[in-house]
Amino acid sequence: MTTTEDRATEQAQMNTLTGQMIIAGTFVTGQGDTVHGLDPATGDVLEPGYSYGSDSDVDAACAAAAAAFDRYRSTTSTVRAEFLEAIAENIESLGDALVDRACSESGLPRPRIAGEVGRTAGQLRLFAGVLRDGGWNGARIDPAQPDRTPLPRADIRQRKIPLGPVAVFGASNFPLAFSVAGGDTASALAAGCPVVVKAHDAHPGTSELVGRAITEAIARTGMPAGTFSLLYGSGPILGTRLVTDPRIKAVGFTGSRSGGTALVAAAAARPEPIPVYAEMSSVNPVFLMESALRNRGTDLGQAFVGSLTMGAGQFCTNPGLVIAVDGPALDDFVRSASDAIAASAPAPMLTPGIARSYADGVEAFSTAATAEAKAPTTDRPNTCGAAVFSTDADTFLASEVLQEEVFGSASLVVKCVDANQVRAVAARLEGQLTATVHCDDDDLEAAGELMSVLELKAGRILFNGWPTGVEVGHAMVHGGPYPATSDSRTTSVGSLAIERFLRPVAYQDVPPALLPSAIADGNPDQLWRRIDGRLVQD
Amino acid sequence: MTTTEDRATEQAQMNTLTGQMIIAGTFVTGQGDTVHGLDPATGDVLEPGYSYGSDSDVDAACAAAAAAFDRYRSTTSTVRAEFLEAIAENIESLGDALVDRACSESGLPRPRIAGEVGRTAGQLRLFAGVLRDGGWNGARIDPAQPDRTPLPRADIRQRKIPLGPVAVFGASNFPLAFSVAGGDTASALAAGCPVVVKAHDAHPGTSELVGRAITEAIARTGMPAGTFSLLYGSGPILGTRLVTDPRIKAVGFTGSRSGGTALVAAAAARPEPIPVYAEMSSVNPVFLMESALRNRGTDLGQAFVGSLTMGAGQFCTNPGLVIAVDGPALDDFVRSASDAIAASAPAPMLTPGIARSYADGVEAFSTAATAEAKAPTTDRPNTCGAAVFSTDADTFLASEVLQEEVFGSASLVVKCVDANQVRAVAARLEGQLTATVHCDDDDLEAAGELMSVLELKAGRILFNGWPTGVEVGHAMVHGGPYPATSDSRTTSVGSLAIERFLRPVAYQDVPPALLPSAIADGNPDQLWRRIDGRLVQD
Repeated sequence: MTTTEDRATEQAQMNTLTGQMIIAGTFVTGQGDTVHGLDPATGDVLEPGYSYGSDSDVDAACAAAAAAFDRYRSTTSTVRAEFLEAIAENIESLGDALVDRACSESGLPRPRIAGEVGRTAGQLRLFAGVLRDGGWNGARIDPAQPDRTPLPRADIRQRKIPLGPVAVFGASNFPLAFSVAGGDTASALAAGCPVVVKAHDAHPGTSELVGRAITEAIARTGMPAGTFSLLYGSGPILGTRLVTDPRIKAVGFTGSRSGGTALVAAAAARPEPIPVYAEMSSVNPVFLMESALRNRGTDLGQAFVGSLTMGAGQFCTNPGLVIAVDGPALDDFVRSASDAIAASAPAPMLTPGIARSYADGVEAFSTAATAEAKAPTTDRPNTCGAAVFSTDADTFLASEVLQEEVFGSASLVVKCVDANQVRAVAARLEGQLTATVHCDDDDLEAAGELMSVLELKAGRILFNGWPTGVEVGHAMVHGGPYPATSDSRTTSVGSLAIERFLRPVAYQDVPPALLPSAIADGNPDQLWRRIDGRLVQD
Repeated sequence: MTTTEDRATEQAQMNTLTGQMIIAGTFVTGQGDTVHGLDPATGDVLEPGYSYGSDSDVDAACAAAAAAFDRYRSTTSTVRAEFLEAIAENIESLGDALVDRACSESGLPRPRIAGEVGRTAGQLRLFAGVLRDGGWNGARIDPAQPDRTPLPRADIRQRKIPLGPVAVFGASNFPLAFSVAGGDTASALAAGCPVVVKAHDAHPGTSELVGRAITEAIARTGMPAGTFSLLYGSGPILGTRLVTDPRIKAVGFTGSRSGGTALVAAAAARPEPIPVYAEMSSVNPVFLMESALRNRGTDLGQAFVGSLTMGAGQFCTNPGLVIAVDGPALDDFVRSASDAIAASAPAPMLTPGIARSYADGVEAFSTAATAEAKAPTTDRPNTCGAAVFSTDADTFLASEVLQEEVFGSASLVVKCVDANQVRAVAARLEGQLTATVHCDDDDLEAAGELMSVLELKAGRILFNGWPTGVEVGHAMVHGGPYPATSDSRTTSVGSLAIERFLRPVAYQDVPPALLPSAIADGNPDQLWRRIDGRLVQD
C-alpha cells in the first residue's frame, strides 16, 4: 500500500535532477562536453551539468527502440491511450518543480509556462482520444468477388502501421509543448513508434524532468523500456548520428532553417532515405485590407504589437510582416504600433545566442529599411527590444535580407501602391505557417481574391485575429509550403499529425486468424471503415 | 448537328498520328533528336518519328499548367469527375487503333493490352467516384467556443487542397495504365493538379493517342487548356528540366531505381524541394511455408512459373525471389518449376535495351548462383527466356548481385536450413512492393510470426496467391519501404493515391461568405466531416 508519505517521497525523487540521460529506462551519465541550463533573465548558470552522449549512447538508444518496436506497435489503441494519459498525469504531477525549472531555463513568464504544461498534457490526451476513435487506422476493405469475370477479385484490406523508431529534436522556444513530450513525441508514440529525443541545450533540466515522467509512465503501464530514450548532445554531431542511424525511420524537428535543412540533407543521403518533418521558418504575413484599415487602423496597430511582443516574439507564428496599401490609414496603423512599441518593455530571450541573432537581424533591417519605432533599451542581459520597420513593395521584393525571418519581436510593414501590388507581393512570398487577413464587410471580395493566393502560400489562413496562439485540435494545421516546413503535406500540431508516422499496408487473402483487429471480420474495434470505398461503421 | 459520318471522320482524325507534342491543347513539333516506336517482336521501326522537345517547350508546358491551376482547382468535384469520365470514354473510343499501336510498340499480347485499356479507363472512373464521395477533402471543423476560459476558441476548419502542377513520367511496362493517362495522371487530375507528362520513348504513338484523348476531353468539358501537356524528350535532360521547373510541385514516376533516385535527387536539390513518388524496384519475395510446400510443392512450382513468365516477367510485382526451408518438398517445387520453365516459350521484351539488361542480369546470376532451369533459346529478337536459379541463405545474404532485381522472368530460390533462417532472411530484405506467403492450416502460427516481419518490409502482403496482378480498388497499396518506392507513406495504385497530391490548409475565423463549400456551414456538399474530431455527415 502506498501511503501519502511514500508518494511525497517518490515525487521529491522525481523532482531531483541528476544531470543524466535516460536510455531505455536506465540513467546514463554522458562522457562528452558538459552543458548547463542558463537563466537568460539573470545570466545565472543552473545546476546540474549535463554531459553529452557519445555514438555508443545513440547506438544503445536506437537498438533499444528497435527492440521495443514490435511489442510496442502491437499494443492496442486503448493501451497506448492509457500510456499517453499516464505521461500527461505525470507531467502535471511535477507541479511547481517543472514550472520553476522551465521558467528559469527559458526566461519565459510563469503564466506562459503554466499554460504550456496544460497544453502539453492536453496534446497527449488529444492523441489518446485519436487512438480511441481509431480513425488513424485508415481501415479499408474491398471484399472478395469470387464470381467476377474475367477474373475473380481477391479479398483486399488496408490499414496503417507505424514507420518505426522516430527521432525527435526538442525546440528552444517551447520547452514543453514542442520538446521532450511535445507534439512530435505524442503523435509518434500514438502511432506506435518508439521515440528517441535529443534534448535542446536551452532547457536540459526541464527535459530531464519530462523524460523521467515518460519513463515512469512506461514502467507503470508496462510498455517496453526502449519505447523512449532521452539524449543530450550537439545537433551537428549527436543529432546527425541519430538521424543517420539505420534503425530510425522518421524525424520530427522544430527549429531554425539551417538546422532543419541540415537534417533533411542527412536523412536524404542515407542508404534508406527517411522523412523529416522540420518546422523551420516563417514570417507570417498580415494583410490589412483597405476598409478594415480605415475603420480601425489604430486598434489594429495596438493589437498587432500585442501579438508581436508576446513571449519576446519567440513564436514560429510571430507576425513578422505587415502588408497593406499605403496612405493615411496605414500611417495611423504605423503610428499606433510605434506608440505601443515605444511603451513596450524589453523581455529576456531564450538564450544568449538567440538574443545575439535578434540584435544582428534588427541591425540588418535597420540598414535595409526605415526604422519606425524601437523599444527602450535596458541593461538587463539577453533582452529583445521590439522594433518595427517599413519599406515599399519594390524594395521588399528586391531584398533577401528583408524577406528573411528575424526570430524575435521585429516586424516589417510593406507599403503597396494598390491592391494589385498587395496581391503581387503575396504571390511572391515563400511558404508560410500562417497568413492573416484583417477585413471588414466592404473588403470581402478583395479578401476572397487574396485568400486564393494565400491558400498556396500558407498552412493556416486566419481572419481578423493574430497568428500567435496555435490551437491544439482536430482542424489545426501548423505546417505549410517550404521553407515553413520541409513537408507541406502534414501538420506538427493537432490530431492530423499522427499521419506523419504511419504508412498503409494492404493485406490480400490473409487468413482470418491472422488479420489485425482493425480490418478483421465483424469489426471488433467498431471502427469507421471504407467498405468498397463507402464509409460505414459495419 | 453531328452525323454518324462526322463522328467517324473525327475518330479517324483522332487515330492518325502526327508525331507532335501537345502543349496546352496546341500541337507542337519538337526540334531535337527524333525517336521512333519500335516493334520489339519484329524489330520493325514504326512511323511517325517523334522529335524531342526543348527547354522552351518545358517552359511553355509548365507556364500553361501554372496558369491553369487556379481555375482548374476551383472546379467542383462533380465537374472534375465528368472530365475524368470523358477521358475514359475517349480512350475506349480509340478502339483497335490504340490496341494495335500499343501491341506493336510493346510486343505485349493483345488480350493483355485490351485488358490494360479497361484498367486505365477503370482507374479514371475510380477517381471520378473518389471525387463524388468527397472524402478526399479531409473536411474537419472545430467550432468556435466563445465562452471558453481562460481563452475563447476560434472557429477552425480544415480541408485539403492540391499541391500544384504535377510532372508524370510514363513507364515502359504499362504503356497505358502507368503512362500518359495512368494512375499518376488520374490521381493528380482528380486532386485538382494540372499534369505535364513526359512520354516514355518505348511507346510514343500510344502516348500521342492517349494525350489527344485527354486534350479532347479538356475541350469538351471546358477545362483550362493548360490542365494537360505531353512532352517527348530524354529523361536525364528534358525530364530533369521538368522536375526542376519551379512551377512543378510534385512528381509521379514508375521505372528503374537509377531513374527514380536521379529524379528524387534533382527534386531535393531545388530551392523549393518537392515530393517525388517514384515506384522503383522490388524482387517480391515469395515464402513457401513447410506444410504448404509438403502438401502441394509440385502445384506451387507450376503456378509460380505462370506468374513469373506472365508479360515476359515485366511486372513491378514479378516474383523474383522464393524463400523456403530446404528439403525434399522444396526439391519437388524446384523440379516442377524447372519443368515448366523448360516448356515455356521465350517472349518479346518491351525494348532492345530491356532485353539486353535481362540477358546481363541472367549472366550475373549464372555466376553467383546455381542455374536450375532455363527456357529454350530462340532466334527471335529481344526475347526473354525464363530462368530459375538457386542458392543457400548465407550466399544470398552476402551477395549484392543476388539481392538485386533482374527485370524479366528470372527468379532465385533461397534454400534455408530452418524456419528461423527464413525469418532472418526476411528481416534482412530491402523494402518491397509485395511479400507473398503460401501456407496451409498447420503453418498458421509460423506464418503469423513471419507476417509481422513482412509488414515492415512490404506495401502488400498476400497469401496463397501470386503478386502479379495489382487490383485497382480502395484497399490496394502499390507502394512500400525504400527502395520499392521513394515514399512508403502512400500508394501509386488505388484510390488512396489521390492523397499524394494534396496538403491540408486550416481556415480560422474565415467569414462564411469566403469558406470553401467542403467546410461551409450547412454542409452543402453532404460530406462526412470530423466535427470536434467526431466523424459525422452533419
